[in-house]
Amino acid sequence: MASVLPSEQQVDGRAADGVLSAARLRWVDRVWRAANYLSVGQIYLLDNPLLHEPLRAEQVKPRLLGHWGTTPGLNFLYAHLSRAIVEHDLNAMYVIGPGHGGPALFANTWLEGSYTAHEPAITQDLAGMRRLFRQFSFPGGVPSHVAPQVPGSIHEGGELGYSLAHAYGAAFDNPDLLVACVIGDGEAETGPLAASWHANKFLDAKRDGAVLPILHLNGYKIANPTVLARIPHEELDSLLRGYGYRPHYVEGHDPEAMHQLMAATLDQVIREIHTIQHGARGPEPDGERPCWPMIVLRTPKGWTGPAEVDGLAVEGTWRAHQVPLAQVRENPEHLAALEGWMRSYRPEELFDRAGRPIAEITEAMPRGPRRMGANPHANGGQLLRPLDLPDPREFAIPTERPGGQWSEPARVLGGYLREVFRRNAEARNFRLFGPDETASNRLDAVYEVTGKQWQAGLEPVDEHLARDGRVLEVLSEHLCQGWLEGYLLTGRHGLFNCYEAFAHIVDSMFNQHAKWLKIARNLPWRAPIASLNYLISSHVWRQDHNGFSHQDPGFIDHVMNKKSEVVRVYLPPDSNTLLAVAEHCLASRDLVNVIVAGKNPTPVWMDAEQAALHCARGAGIFEWASTDTDSAADGEPDVVLACAGDVPTLEVLAATDLLRRRLPWLRVRVVNVVDLMRLQPHTEHPHGMTDPEFDALFTRDKPVLFAYHGYPWLIHRLTYRRANHHNLHVRGYKEEGTTTTPFDMLVQNDMDRYRLVIDVIDRVPGLGARAARLRQDMTDARARHHRWIREHGEDLPEVRDWAWPQ
Amino acid sequence: MASVLPSEQQVDGRAADGVLSAARLRWVDRVWRAANYLSVGQIYLLDNPLLHEPLRAEQVKPRLLGHWGTTPGLNFLYAHLSRAIVEHDLNAMYVIGPGHGGPALFANTWLEGSYTAHEPAITQDLAGMRRLFRQFSFPGGVPSHVAPQVPGSIHEGGELGYSLAHAYGAAFDNPDLLVACVIGDGEAETGPLAASWHANKFLDAKRDGAVLPILHLNGYKIANPTVLARIPHEELDSLLRGYGYRPHYVEGHDPEAMHQLMAATLDQVIREIHTIQHGARGPEPDGERPCWPMIVLRTPKGWTGPAEVDGLAVEGTWRAHQVPLAQVRENPEHLAALEGWMRSYRPEELFDRAGRPIAEITEAMPRGPRRMGANPHANGGQLLRPLDLPDPREFAIPTERPGGQWSEPARVLGGYLREVFRRNAEARNFRLFGPDETASNRLDAVYEVTGKQWQAGLEPVDEHLARDGRVLEVLSEHLCQGWLEGYLLTGRHGLFNCYEAFAHIVDSMFNQHAKWLKIARNLPWRAPIASLNYLISSHVWRQDHNGFSHQDPGFIDHVMNKKSEVVRVYLPPDSNTLLAVAEHCLASRDLVNVIVAGKNPTPVWMDAEQAALHCARGAGIFEWASTDTDSAADGEPDVVLACAGDVPTLEVLAATDLLRRRLPWLRVRVVNVVDLMRLQPHTEHPHGMTDPEFDALFTRDKPVLFAYHGYPWLIHRLTYRRANHHNLHVRGYKEEGTTTTPFDMLVQNDMDRYRLVIDVIDRVPGLGARAARLRQDMTDARARHHRWIREHGEDLPEVRDWAWPQ
Repeated sequence: MASVLPSEQQVDGRAADGVLSAARLRWVDRVWRAANYLSVGQIYLLDNPLLHEPLRAEQVKPRLLGHWGTTPGLNFLYAHLSRAIVEHDLNAMYVIGPGHGGPALFANTWLEGSYTAHEPAITQDLAGMRRLFRQFSFPGGVPSHVAPQVPGSIHEGGELGYSLAHAYGAAFDNPDLLVACVIGDGEAETGPLAASWHANKFLDAKRDGAVLPILHLNGYKIANPTVLARIPHEELDSLLRGYGYRPHYVEGHDPEAMHQLMAATLDQVIREIHTIQHGARGPEPDGERPCWPMIVLRTPKGWTGPAEVDGLAVEGTWRAHQVPLAQVRENPEHLAALEGWMRSYRPEELFDRAGRPIAEITEAMPRGPRRMGANPHANGGQLLRPLDLPDPREFAIPTERPGGQWSEPARVLGGYLREVFRRNAEARNFRLFGPDETASNRLDAVYEVTGKQWQAGLEPVDEHLARDGRVLEVLSEHLCQGWLEGYLLTGRHGLFNCYEAFAHIVDSMFNQHAKWLKIARNLPWRAPIASLNYLISSHVWRQDHNGFSHQDPGFIDHVMNKKSEVVRVYLPPDSNTLLAVAEHCLASRDLVNVIVAGKNPTPVWMDAEQAALHCARGAGIFEWASTDTDSAADGEPDVVLACAGDVPTLEVLAATDLLRRRLPWLRVRVVNVVDLMRLQPHTEHPHGMTDPEFDALFTRDKPVLFAYHGYPWLIHRLTYRRANHHNLHVRGYKEEGTTTTPFDMLVQNDMDRYRLVIDVIDRVPGLGARAARLRQDMTDARARHHRWIREHGEDLPEVRDWAWPQ
Repeated sequence: MASVLPSEQQVDGRAADGVLSAARLRWVDRVWRAANYLSVGQIYLLDNPLLHEPLRAEQVKPRLLGHWGTTPGLNFLYAHLSRAIVEHDLNAMYVIGPGHGGPALFANTWLEGSYTAHEPAITQDLAGMRRLFRQFSFPGGVPSHVAPQVPGSIHEGGELGYSLAHAYGAAFDNPDLLVACVIGDGEAETGPLAASWHANKFLDAKRDGAVLPILHLNGYKIANPTVLARIPHEELDSLLRGYGYRPHYVEGHDPEAMHQLMAATLDQVIREIHTIQHGARGPEPDGERPCWPMIVLRTPKGWTGPAEVDGLAVEGTWRAHQVPLAQVRENPEHLAALEGWMRSYRPEELFDRAGRPIAEITEAMPRGPRRMGANPHANGGQLLRPLDLPDPREFAIPTERPGGQWSEPARVLGGYLREVFRRNAEARNFRLFGPDETASNRLDAVYEVTGKQWQAGLEPVDEHLARDGRVLEVLSEHLCQGWLEGYLLTGRHGLFNCYEAFAHIVDSMFNQHAKWLKIARNLPWRAPIASLNYLISSHVWRQDHNGFSHQDPGFIDHVMNKKSEVVRVYLPPDSNTLLAVAEHCLASRDLVNVIVAGKNPTPVWMDAEQAALHCARGAGIFEWASTDTDSAADGEPDVVLACAGDVPTLEVLAATDLLRRRLPWLRVRVVNVVDLMRLQPHTEHPHGMTDPEFDALFTRDKPVLFAYHGYPWLIHRLTYRRANHHNLHVRGYKEEGTTTTPFDMLVQNDMDRYRLVIDVIDRVPGLGARAARLRQDMTDARARHHRWIREHGEDLPEVRDWAWPQ
C-alpha cells in the first residue's frame, strides 16, 4: 500500500512549506486517514473494529461487497472541503457522482457527528463503530452506494451520469450555497454528464449559488481505463476550457504534497468564486458570463490501498475498483494484508480506546449545519416553503353548457403558471423546465412575468431571454430532469413540460428518482419534498404533423411499474380539469405526478366547480352525455362508453352524439377517468376504487367500451381483477402512425368515433335494423375519410366542425 | 430573402478566384438552388410545381407541415458532398442529425435520380415533381422527417441526439467509407450527442472508415438560440479541439463566397483524412491516435428564405424553424411572398419545361451507387453476409440428469461468442458492445480471440486493449446502442450486453429503432438487416450486491409495447437454452431480441438436444419435475407451477422438490416458458399460442402459480384472454430491494420457494393436515431466513446448498 504521511512526529518537526500549517496539515491528514480506516472497516469487518486484538478470519464479513477504488479520493475531498468550510465559513454541500463509494460518506458523516445525529443507534464510540461497519452492505443494514440513507446526499450514485445536473439544480436560487460536485471519470463518459458541463451557460452568478465541479481522474472504470484519463493533458485542458471552465489541477500521490496542493487550490478556487459573485452582485455587474473555476483531481485508484495482491498490481489500477483483497476469510495472507492495510492508517492516533475520534479531529470540524452531512439543503424538505397557489377557479374557462366553449388546455395552464410565478416571485422557489418546448407547448404566458434563464451570448432578435429568468430551456431532457430533481431535493418546486414520446429519454432518471422517493419516504429524518411534476402536453394524438417518431404514449406504462405509493397519472379531459389537477399536483409531496393534457383547442366539458369535484373523485359519469338514467327503471345502461384522456373523451362524446341521434332508445353511459390509478383495486393503490365503486360506474355485466389515451393493454392490466373485466373492450394507441391528419391518427388506431359506434353495435345484442344501417354508415364514413384526406390533406369538415350539441 | 448567386451570366463573366472553376461553381449553386426550390415546393405546393402559371391559393397545401430552417444548410452540404464524391471518387454516405429537414433529402435524392430508382412512381419529370411535392407530409405520403422512406438514410432525425453515434457505427469495419454526419446545434445540446464526440478514441484509422462531423450552427432551436452558437469562437474551438478534432470553419451567408469556402474546406478535409488513412495503413504506421478533421458550418437559419414576414425578421432567426410563411392560403401577401421566394431560385434555369433537371445538373452528378441516396451501405441489408454460426451443441454443458451440472450461463455464452468472433474474423462483420461490463458479465472468453478497441493512451497494466479490437466498451449505454444501430443498419451483426436496470437508459433509442424496423420491413426496397440483440445478464435477481438502483426488470415491459412483429423476449433458464436462443437471435433479421440470462452458477436443466427442442417450442412441461402424468388417470395436475427466467425456474423447482418430498400424492406440473411471446394469443403475436395449446399446458381450470422474472402484471397482460386466467397467480419483482443476499431478494418480493409452497397450499383445496404442517414449516423457514441473514450476512446453508435431487 502507498504510504500515508510519515509518522506525526516527523511532520511536527518540519515547517510546512505550503498553505497548510503543520497543525492543519496534520488535521486534514488525520481526518483522511480516519475516513479511509472507517471505509475499509465497513467493507470488511464484522467485529474487532479498532483492531484492539489481532484480526481473525471470522471477524471478516463472509460476503465482501463494496467499492474501494473511488473511496480514498472521496475521503480526501471530504476532509479538504471540511477544512475550507471552517476557514472560509462556507455553506457547502457535496454531490458525489461516484456513488458506489458509499463507505466514504458513511465514514465522514460518522466522523463529523452528523450520521449519529440522524441515526442515533450508530454512536460515536466503539459500539457504534462496530455497528457502522457491520451494517454496511449487510442484510437489514445500509446499501453499498451513496443513497437516501446517507445524510447530506441528494444523489444516488448507482446509475451514473446525473451528478453535475443535480448539483446545478441545487445551486439555482441558492445564492449563498456552494455545491461541490465530484465527477468520476467513468461517469464522465456518459451522455448526460457530457451535456451537463454546459449548465454554466444558464447559472446566474448573482442570484444562484456556485457549483464547483471536481473531475476525479482515478483512471479506471470496472475493467477499463477511462477516456478522460487517457487523453493528453492539453486536450483535456482544451476540453474543459471549451466547456467554459478554468481548470485547476491537483495531481499526484504523495499525501503531504497532495494535501498542500489541494488546500492551496481550494483556497484559490474559493477566492475566484467569491470574486465572480462579488462582481455579479456589486453595484456595477459587468454582465459577462463568468469563467467559473473547477478542479481536476488525479490520484491513483484505490489510493493508499494494497499496492499488490497475489503478485498483481492493484493500487492505481482497475483491480482496485471493488474489493482489493477478496479471499480474506480463506487466505491467511489476504487476512494479514488486510490487517496491515488497516493498521497503516495508525488508528491509535485517530481514535481513543473507547472508539471516539480524538478531540483534535472533532474540534476542528465544521459545526452544526455547516457539516456537509447536516446541511439542510441536502434534506430539502426541511427548507420547503409551500407554494402560494392561486385558486384554479379564477383561471377557469366559464362555460354554461358542456362543450359550449373551446379552449387550449396547456395555454390555460400557462395563465395559471404565470400567476404561480408572480405570487412566488419573492420566494424564488418555483421553476419551469423544458427542452425548448415551453412556447410550442403553449405555456408562453409565463413570459409575461419571467424569462428564460440564459448567460450565453445575446442578439437583438432574441425574445424572453433573461439572466435571472425562472424558465430553463435546453435541448436535453436529461438536463431538464436532472436540474429539476436537484431543485426539488433541495426543497423547491417545479414542473417539467415535455413531449410525450421524448419523456422516454429520461425513463431511467425517473426510475432512480422514484426509487429514491420510496426509500426517503420511509426515513424518519428525511422531510417530505415537493413532487416531481411532468406535463405531457405534445402527446401522441397531436403529433400527427411530426410523424411516427413523435408518437409514443408509453411513458405512462413505464411510470406505472413503480411503487404505487409514489406515482400518480392524470388525464384531464379539458382546460378546467387540467387546472384542478395542476393545483393538486403542485401542492403534493414526495410523489411523481404525470399529467397528460393537450395543447390544441378542446371543448370545455365542465365549469370550475364541476371540474374540481370530478378531479377529486378521479372518475365519474358524465350525466349530461349519458342516456341511461332517464330511460330505464333499473338505472343500468345498455353499454358503457368510458374514456381517459382529452382526445379519447372528445371521440367518445362524438360517438355518443351519433348514437343518441341514430339510436335514441339505446341507454348509453359515459364514464370519464381523470385519475388513472382509480382503476386499480384499492388494495393495490391508495387511489384505487373498491369493487362496489368500480361496479357502480362500469356495471357488473354490461359491455364496456373504453377509449384510452395510450396502449390499450394498460387498462386491462389495471382492471383484470374486476367482475366485469371480460366485458371490457379497450381502444387505444396500437403503434400505428405517420405524418398525417389528427383524425387519421384515430382511424389508424381504430379509436375514431365511427369505429367506436361500430364497436357498440357489435357488442350490444339485438339492436336491429336501424343499428345495422348505422353500422354501414359508419363503415362508409371511414372510407369517405380515407378518400378525403388523400385528396385534401386535411380532415373531413364533419369531423373538424363537430361540436357537442348545445 | 437573401440573394443566391447573381444571375448566371454574371458568374460566367468572372474568373473564379476560389478552388471552384466557374463551371463547377455554377453547377454546385444550381444543384443547391434546385434542391432549395424542391424543398420549398414540398412544404407548400399541391400543384403548379414549376410555377408555369401564377401561383393560386388553392394550389397550396391546406396544412403546412415541415421544417424549412435547417433545410437550405442540408441542401448546401448535399451539393458540396456530391461534388467531392465525383472529384475525389469517394464512397460516401450522409447521416443527417437535423432530420426534421426531410424535404432536403427527398429533394436531393430526386435530383440525383436515386429517389426515382427506389420509388418509380415519383418520376423525374413534371408529373413526378408534382407527386414529390404532394406526397410530402401528406396523408398516404411520406413523413416530414428523414425516415426509413428516404433512400440513403440510416437515421431518423425525429428524436435528436444519435446522429454521430450512428455515423461511427456505420464507419466501423468499412475502411473505404466516408460517413459525413451533419449535427444540428440543437441536437448538439443533448447528452448522447455530447458523449458521441469521444468516439474518435475508439475508431481505428487502419481498419475502420472515416467519420466527418459537420457541426451546423444555424443558431436556433424551435424558440431559443443554441448554446454552441452563442459561445465565443475561442471557446467553441477549444471545445472541439478538446474533443480531439481539428475544426475547419465555413461561416457566412454570401452564396458565392460560401461555395468557394466550402469546396476548399472539403478538399482540405478529404486530404487530411487520406493522409491519416495512408499513414495508418502504410508499412510503418505511427501508432498515434490521429486528429481527425471536422467542419463547423455557420449559416443563417432558413438561409435564402424570406428575410421578413409581417414585419418580423425570419431568415437568420428561430422564426425560420418551421414554415416561414404560414397564411399562404388566406393572406395574398404571403402567397405573393411564397411565389417570389420560389422564383428567386430561378427554376427556369434548373429544370426544363418537362420538369426534368437540366442536363448540366444531372451530368455532373455522382453515378450509380456513388450517389448518396443509392449507397448500398445505407441500405445495409443489401450487403448483409450471414454470420458463420457454430453449432450451439458443441458448446453445451453435458448433463445426464436435470440439474446434474451447474454452470454460469453468460460464461458459457462467452465461449460461444469467442467462436463466433473466430469464424467471422475475416468477414469483420460482428461486434460486441457493452458499457464496461463485458468482463463483469462473464463474457470475457472473447478476449482470447479479440480485444477491446481503444485508440487513447496505453499503460503497461492494461489488458485486452487493442487498436483493432472487436469489442467496444464505453461507459455510455447511449453510445453502445447508437454504435450498434449504425453497425446493423449498414449490414453487419452485433450484440449489446447491458445491466438490466440500465437498459432503460436507452429506452427511447430502442423505441426509435423499433419504429424504424416497423416501417423499413414494409418498404420493398429496404433489404432485411440483422436483428438488434440485447443480452441482459446482470439482472434484477443478481444485483443483490449493488442495491436498489440496480434492480429493475422493466425493460421487458417497455419492449413489449412495440409492434409484435418486431420484438421478441427470451428468458432461457440455463446455459444450454441460452446457447440455443443466442444462435437463433444471431441468425434472425429485422427484429429486436431481448435475452435475459444470468451470469451466476445455475443448474443445467437440459442437454443440448432437449434445450434446442424446448427453445423451438418456446414453452413446455418439465416432465422430469412434474408428478401429474404418472399418478392420475385423467393426466390433469392438481396445480401448475409455471416459471420464466433462470432464477424463477430454480425457485419453482426448489418449491417442487419440497412439495414432492412432503406431499408426494400432490399432482404438480412444472411449465417453463422461454419465449415470453408464446403466452400471447396467436392472433396478437406471430409466436403466440392458440387457446388449445395454452390450455394443454396451463389447463382450463386448475390453479396456476407463475413465478416470473419481472413485474408480475406483465404476465396478466399477456394472458388475460385465456380461459384459465382467473386461476392464474403471478409472483415476480414488486419493486422491493436493497443491498442484501440473493435469496433475500426473493423473500422480499414473495417469490422464494417457501412462499411458493405456501401459495400452492393456499390455492389447492382439501390438502389436509400434512399440508397445514408444511405450511407452518414454510412460515418458520422464512423467519429462520430473516434471523440468519441478519446474523451471518449470507443465505441459509439449506438455500445455498440446494440442488435438484439426483
